[in-house]
Amino acid sequence: MSRPVYAIVLAGGSGTRFWPASRSARPKQLLAIDPTSDLPLIASTVERIEGFCSPEHVLVATGEALLPATVSALPHLPPSSFLGEPVARNTAACIGWATFVIAQRAPDALVMVVPSDQAVSDRAGYAAAVERALRSASTGAITVIGVRPTRPETGYGYIELGEALGEETYAVGQFKEKPDRDTATLYAKSGRHLWNAGMFFFTAQSLLAALDEHLPELARGLSRMVEAPGSVREVFSSLPAVSIDHGLIEKVSGLRVVAAEFGWSDLGSWETAWELAAKDSAGNAAHGETLFVDAARNLVFDLRTARASGLTAVLGVEGLCIVQTDDALLVMPRERAQDVRQVVDALKERGRSELT
Amino acid sequence: MSRPVYAIVLAGGSGTRFWPASRSARPKQLLAIDPTSDLPLIASTVERIEGFCSPEHVLVATGEALLPATVSALPHLPPSSFLGEPVARNTAACIGWATFVIAQRAPDALVMVVPSDQAVSDRAGYAAAVERALRSASTGAITVIGVRPTRPETGYGYIELGEALGEETYAVGQFKEKPDRDTATLYAKSGRHLWNAGMFFFTAQSLLAALDEHLPELARGLSRMVEAPGSVREVFSSLPAVSIDHGLIEKVSGLRVVAAEFGWSDLGSWETAWELAAKDSAGNAAHGETLFVDAARNLVFDLRTARASGLTAVLGVEGLCIVQTDDALLVMPRERAQDVRQVVDALKERGRSELT
Repeated sequence: MSRPVYAIVLAGGSGTRFWPASRSARPKQLLAIDPTSDLPLIASTVERIEGFCSPEHVLVATGEALLPATVSALPHLPPSSFLGEPVARNTAACIGWATFVIAQRAPDALVMVVPSDQAVSDRAGYAAAVERALRSASTGAITVIGVRPTRPETGYGYIELGEALGEETYAVGQFKEKPDRDTATLYAKSGRHLWNAGMFFFTAQSLLAALDEHLPELARGLSRMVEAPGSVREVFSSLPAVSIDHGLIEKVSGLRVVAAEFGWSDLGSWETAWELAAKDSAGNAAHGETLFVDAARNLVFDLRTARASGLTAVLGVEGLCIVQTDDALLVMPRERAQDVRQVVDALKERGRSELT
Repeated sequence: MSRPVYAIVLAGGSGTRFWPASRSARPKQLLAIDPTSDLPLIASTVERIEGFCSPEHVLVATGEALLPATVSALPHLPPSSFLGEPVARNTAACIGWATFVIAQRAPDALVMVVPSDQAVSDRAGYAAAVERALRSASTGAITVIGVRPTRPETGYGYIELGEALGEETYAVGQFKEKPDRDTATLYAKSGRHLWNAGMFFFTAQSLLAALDEHLPELARGLSRMVEAPGSVREVFSSLPAVSIDHGLIEKVSGLRVVAAEFGWSDLGSWETAWELAAKDSAGNAAHGETLFVDAARNLVFDLRTARASGLTAVLGVEGLCIVQTDDALLVMPRERAQDVRQVVDALKERGRSELT
């Protein structure tokens, strides 16, 4: 691997599942909601990849409106690390743009693409998997990481393994959409189905070639854009909005997958935060000073800026999720974590959009 | 009633049942926890009695340490309205002292004694009852107010009615301790048992005479104290600590009771606050901006100083009590309201007494 390694950090996400912590101006990746860390998810993400590429080789792609907050969360990255998308055009346009930029800076670059809002508990396992994926990609094969399932999860897409190529690396058999419960149970036991963790590895040249072949309109637009930086706003808005998965990855030949296990989680909701958190003997998890009396299996997440001075007391309740920010408090059963959107919708109806 | 009317407001209370709102330095009477009012309970109390006596005729008896906060809660009362007890010596010493002070200022005074931490929803009914009690007391008979029970309450003492004397006024038959459930049910139906609301009415001279007769040691001590104001600290500490009920009221002859009903509540816990509060169609009560989604019979009480800017969202839960202050949050089932003391005890054990 004598090629220079670059990273594209995908930070365009929005979403409501972590309200009241997440807001339209403060999406998930900017929050310190990994219960095992005090850093915003995006800062943990960049920290994880620093073993593979220097700060100058990190490109963070986010929405224009989120640029200031994103820059603040990553103070050690240089200004040239940030790409602000004028409008959201899905991941193919975003990754394509960043890869064009990287190819200008280093035509022989090896590139890793990582989401900015996931959690990883086994850093050594993560590093080993990335190492293998980069090695695989350096041969010219676009490579993804597949995470070995630990439960029959219906919320993720799966990758079916093809031929074994050595070093935990396989040809990709097929991509599988989010399965139903029965299918997920089969997948979890098969040993041949992995979770798609949304991480991609390639040489800049192999991705540009794949764009030319499978998304030629996008490739032409991006090519014009990088030749005339003044045209970004106009051209980017006109690009087709397709995902890198459906638009490209699922179509290219010779795709590889590195199988790995490193305590990966997509941190999909407050329920996931409880699952990842350290717990007391009664199953209570707390971020911020909390007193539990006759209470079990609760999650308390105090994200107030002045939380050092305060305390949460939880008496006689089970399975609740209690989240505090400076301007909002949420109390719900953990099992309703998927319904937080209902609160956000109700706030909008009430004319309280500034809290969403 | 040509006699001048004075009031003694009993504000020595402490207690933990309204934690996290109540603290040792900020007891119940100083809190705005009557859900039908924005005033601290003691300010509502003084407002209610202002129809009967001018501010100069109000004496507020509280612990020395609580004087500054009590004065702040009652800014329109003159400095001469406040009596600071150097140590707690129960209600007989406190009421006796205040009555001695009143007798010095106006020997023919008619005196009403009212707790500072109760709630009254029917102001006109309250005024009518006080009017009758003052009229009864002006004859020289120590008079109490008995509240007609609206439920078989086991948490209150009861007064059994004796001979009817007209104008809803009766001789007192007997005082009854807090009853068991069956007895309370009988009392609630009997029409002859009233709740003891802890309000007393008397002429200063009749109370001083009763003190001489039933608590002579206390009377002598108080007499010395008011003759030599410099001796308050020393003498008050040496006084016997007995309650006005057991030490005096239950012993005097010719005691009368005025029967009344005026939406009285002793506001004993957060559960009582929920009972008194206005509720939505699902039985939710909120003090502070709150959004209820799929939620029923909850109480939200936001006592933060900056609560105007924030919001509480309650999703998918029933029967919870959620209380916020600037430095603490309490979440518990409403039915556990009597167990708040467990939280306070646990905080002390943890070395967090500053939050109690």
